[in-house]
Amino acid sequence: MPVGTQGTVKGLTIDQVASTGADMILGNTYHLRLRPGHETVARLGGLHAMSGWDGPILTDSGGFQVFSLGSLNQVTEQAATFRSHIDGAIVVLTPEHSIEIQEALGSDVAMVLDHVIALPAPQAEVEDALARSIRWAARCRAASTRSDQALFAIVQGGLDAQLRRQCATELAAMPFEGYAVGGLSVGETPEEMYATAAITTPHLPVDKPRYLMGVGTPRDLIENVARGIDLFDCVMPTRNGRNGLAFTDEGPLKLRNATHREDQRPLMQDCECLACRHSRGYLRHLFNAKEMLGPTLLSHHNLTYYGRLMSEVRTALEQGRFEEYAAGKLRGWGYEPIPLG
Amino acid sequence: MPVGTQGTVKGLTIDQVASTGADMILGNTYHLRLRPGHETVARLGGLHAMSGWDGPILTDSGGFQVFSLGSLNQVTEQAATFRSHIDGAIVVLTPEHSIEIQEALGSDVAMVLDHVIALPAPQAEVEDALARSIRWAARCRAASTRSDQALFAIVQGGLDAQLRRQCATELAAMPFEGYAVGGLSVGETPEEMYATAAITTPHLPVDKPRYLMGVGTPRDLIENVARGIDLFDCVMPTRNGRNGLAFTDEGPLKLRNATHREDQRPLMQDCECLACRHSRGYLRHLFNAKEMLGPTLLSHHNLTYYGRLMSEVRTALEQGRFEEYAAGKLRGWGYEPIPLG
Ligand SMILES: [Zn+2]
Ligand SMILES: [Zn+2]
Repeated sequence: MPVGTQGTVKGLTIDQVASTGADMILGNTYHLRLRPGHETVARLGGLHAMSGWDGPILTDSGGFQVFSLGSLNQVTEQAATFRSHIDGAIVVLTPEHSIEIQEALGSDVAMVLDHVIALPAPQAEVEDALARSIRWAARCRAASTRSDQALFAIVQGGLDAQLRRQCATELAAMPFEGYAVGGLSVGETPEEMYATAAITTPHLPVDKPRYLMGVGTPRDLIENVARGIDLFDCVMPTRNGRNGLAFTDEGPLKLRNATHREDQRPLMQDCECLACRHSRGYLRHLFNAKEMLGPTLLSHHNLTYYGRLMSEVRTALEQGRFEEYAAGKLRGWGYEPIPLG
Repeated sequence: MPVGTQGTVKGLTIDQVASTGADMILGNTYHLRLRPGHETVARLGGLHAMSGWDGPILTDSGGFQVFSLGSLNQVTEQAATFRSHIDGAIVVLTPEHSIEIQEALGSDVAMVLDHVIALPAPQAEVEDALARSIRWAARCRAASTRSDQALFAIVQGGLDAQLRRQCATELAAMPFEGYAVGGLSVGETPEEMYATAAITTPHLPVDKPRYLMGVGTPRDLIENVARGIDLFDCVMPTRNGRNGLAFTDEGPLKLRNATHREDQRPLMQDCECLACRHSRGYLRHLFNAKEMLGPTLLSHHNLTYYGRLMSEVRTALEQGRFEEYAAGKLRGWGYEPIPLG
């Protein structure tokens, strides 16, 4: 799922996003609440009409950004109160307001507001935030009024197996249309991330989507699919693309390197993306000359690469040869597959 | 003719450029000589293969940039010597080297190197530069070896009718495939520009293209076509697009203005461009949020606007109703047509 923070996947038109094979895009509630404002988005017809994207859109709850970007004033049982990073205005974000914003944006999938804390933290504080997140999830469910909008809960609990299990079990007993694993990709090792996914997914309903938030590298996608994850969102394809890094089956290529100067080959031989119509030498020139087209082309390549990867994963799963497929991909990138459990 | 300074029309893929109706694009010899280097471009297959543009490409001679961007060391009868604005390297640009670069780039139309001086200047200096430019044009003609590359001469002479006439007459007597009017759009009034075009074009061959370099606004295009110009290049559509300014039949729109905040209308009702699929409110949001998609969409709109204008101009000329068409357009932008002669 490509990330369209401010109502646009950075550097790409909506047709270009669609041509990468993306099914669903993500919009950020926090950013859109502050600029242009959820009421403005609603008056412009909602996120779909405004951006021109007619596939599904998922919006996050704003929680993660409030705790990472906003200057946080306080969290009470009632709300998280913060100052906008744009104009300093004070915003009171309750679970009910998060749902109100997401309903105004008109996304297809809304996320519950959770209480995110920086880890490591004292055990009592972790448990307190977790219990509050579960109460806030219930308030979000109760506040939701649009029958055309699914609501996903978020399992927190850091790297603590006991807390993850407890949180997943409690949320699974409540009526949500899907479940996310949150609080990962925040500095833990890949092995810790994969182990946490592995202990969480068995406690989630088998017939509902499982979404790993903010993850990750191509390797992370493969290893987490192996552990029961269906859906991902990540800024890596576009952010790395803007910085001149292209994903390939042999691992990432840094386009700024002088070695690409006169290289006539495309990034990848059989890639259908807009970048792979050109030589590596030309792509390097665009980054060297600080031309906007460089970030656009590499974002398109990386999203196409991720889209193709997930499409191949689905085919391999259907054909019962996922393990073999995964091992081949991982070895191409220079990794040994990590055994399950 | 959209400007693709560094081998890319800023912010647009080559498909997007083609969809604006552009027939021909311009590449800058000075920029490409310095980065990535004309030999590198040649090894990457030339400008066409590198950029993916299969329509015609015109390259300028590098003269204008040497005199405006480079730190100029000296001009002798033999060459202009300058320091690169990128890495300070010393480059000796002779008429022969300019042709060599343009042949390596593989453009369809090359321009002669001329001696550009800042105006106003003492009459003796103006006449000296003009005489040198004519000698350099002859050297360019003699140096040209590619039969698949046309060579255009450049008429200089500032706002001096006598010098323009003399320069045009001398160059017209030499075998060039086309003629440019140079040294305009450098601070003179629109009336001075139009008058200079009007005194120059009667001295150029009627059966060869006449190209007004670096011009201009939609009004400039109409008024100069009326004075016998066929071809223009200008950074205005893309540069203004990047700055949030959109050309319309009612004059330019500044997208950053708060008045567009919740405006659901497209920039123009019947425009087929990528921007006009969206509301003005969304476009304003993209500029406010500093999203790359804003510059891309507005560049596409402005190039489409210019492309449509020139296509309508051609149709009006064929149908013998140019004067009426021109008056209608000019009045829409708030101008009275300026009588010829
Ligand atoms: Zn590609
Ligand atoms: Zn348009």
